[in-house]
Amino acid sequence: MRRPRVLITSGDPGGIGPELVVRALADPGTGGLADFTAVGAPACFQRAAASLGLPLPRIHPADPPETGPHELAIGRPSAAGGQAAVAAVREAARLMAAGDGDALVTAPVSKEALRLAGYPWPGQTEMLADLCAARDLRVLLMAGPLRVVHVSAHRSLRDAIVAVTEASVLRTIELADDIGRRLLGRAARIAVAGLNPHAGEHGILGEEDERFIRPAVARARARGIDADGPLSADTLFPRAAAGQVDLVVAMYHDQGHIPVKLLGRDEGVAVTLGLPFLRMSPDHGAAFDIAGRGVARPGSMTAAIRAAVAAGRGGHR
Amino acid sequence: MRRPRVLITSGDPGGIGPELVVRALADPGTGGLADFTAVGAPACFQRAAASLGLPLPRIHPADPPETGPHELAIGRPSAAGGQAAVAAVREAARLMAAGDGDALVTAPVSKEALRLAGYPWPGQTEMLADLCAARDLRVLLMAGPLRVVHVSAHRSLRDAIVAVTEASVLRTIELADDIGRRLLGRAARIAVAGLNPHAGEHGILGEEDERFIRPAVARARARGIDADGPLSADTLFPRAAAGQVDLVVAMYHDQGHIPVKLLGRDEGVAVTLGLPFLRMSPDHGAAFDIAGRGVARPGSMTAAIRAAVAAGRGGHR
Repeated sequence: MRRPRVLITSGDPGGIGPELVVRALADPGTGGLADFTAVGAPACFQRAAASLGLPLPRIHPADPPETGPHELAIGRPSAAGGQAAVAAVREAARLMAAGDGDALVTAPVSKEALRLAGYPWPGQTEMLADLCAARDLRVLLMAGPLRVVHVSAHRSLRDAIVAVTEASVLRTIELADDIGRRLLGRAARIAVAGLNPHAGEHGILGEEDERFIRPAVARARARGIDADGPLSADTLFPRAAAGQVDLVVAMYHDQGHIPVKLLGRDEGVAVTLGLPFLRMSPDHGAAFDIAGRGVARPGSMTAAIRAAVAAGRGGHR
Repeated sequence: MRRPRVLITSGDPGGIGPELVVRALADPGTGGLADFTAVGAPACFQRAAASLGLPLPRIHPADPPETGPHELAIGRPSAAGGQAAVAAVREAARLMAAGDGDALVTAPVSKEALRLAGYPWPGQTEMLADLCAARDLRVLLMAGPLRVVHVSAHRSLRDAIVAVTEASVLRTIELADDIGRRLLGRAARIAVAGLNPHAGEHGILGEEDERFIRPAVARARARGIDADGPLSADTLFPRAAAGQVDLVVAMYHDQGHIPVKLLGRDEGVAVTLGLPFLRMSPDHGAAFDIAGRGVARPGSMTAAIRAAVAAGRGGHR
């Protein structure tokens, strides 16, 4: 089996990103799994490695044009931090597009630092969508025994209902199937949640389950995808937690986020689906309040890296 | 402390109700907690006690008018079973209204048996609502560490959004506070979930959280209720599971049912709020497929009885 090439960005240099990257790659159980390259301002990785007394990972430099490393303040959002974070993601996306990586892991950035630096994006997902001209992304959350792909995420519940169409559900199932095959090396058993209570009880409790979700599942099955649904969400998640399904398709943010956050609290991983390349990220923020003290828990970053290694073995798309 | 008087109906005599009642009350850890009376056709309790080799509980008879006990088939839904189940609930509700009980526990009935018997109700909750002329009920689900009251339950998600009004949320919080005081003997710490992702992010992701939920919480607090919200539902439930809040108010079915069913699988209890008396029920059905074999697990019934004892100590309203 070929060794996957995994790129990892620094995230905001003032947050916990650089120390998590250094710690995760210094752990032989993780750092030996693939060919890793840290992408970002070399100074921030050097500072983290020195502070932790750990070896420096291989670095691909991505210094922001206007900033020297001495300006990268730790422990607070800054314009320089936002610029350095964006430079790292931009360079990593360029490398991925050039075929120089099989999966990308992004360390956390700060919404506030991006704003201070004058960027229009609230986060890296929106930035990557712009850089890649990708318009129709989905979020997979993984934690503990659960993997959940969402038809929509950051929308009001009213808008989320409107976003449940046959086409959007089918695309979500197809993206779930694709990442499932990459992560598991086989066809994933996909359970598709209903939108309404009891998946609408055959139309008595809402029409969307029969009108949009059931035909989307039928079309996915006709394409060889092992999908089942619409299923009552409240009885589906206990089955998923017991390992009886591999992936759940949730219809909106809270339907998927509530069980994921309940069962997997320190090891959450988000995967962006629909980009031209694989992208994983830990499910936490830049955590300026604890940055630089060596106390940040690496569980979520380690889980993101391991997911990138597993999925990256299949090669980039 | 006064011994509470708890009534327990048979449920459908052909289901697992009678054996669960006999088993739960024969357990000294449960049967000694209160003055219990089993309400229903005596024959079904006698059959269960003989079959299990356990003592017969005190019985208040409620034979259906048209049916003899020999007609009460076990293991399948029947018109006679539906009639016996309704007779038991009707008589128990009469006793509760007369002040002869502090809390009511109802064993499971069968929707199909009620239909075969020609009744208009899909379940006991609707029947009790009719008998008591109670129009505005709420459901509290308890399981494991969680207690969740729902603003609405069996409605489409579209209708559930419309049901989130300041008045309906306030009433739900007040009912949560009332049952919380009865169950805990003190003011409960109540966390009110938002409707939209991240509780709407100050109106960016939907208006309902600011327009309806926040003022309802403010009015509840002005009335001396320890309520907080609207709170992001995905981060709220881990806190509730860790015991940092006593009661959660959920805005719709799946938002509350998903975490409850995920964390408490064999001990779920439903409490009907808004009736003139306390009513608890185990969170499972009549289970005809295993009825009469003595293998039904009593965890949920025992939990319902213990909740009735705890809440019943406060006396009926």
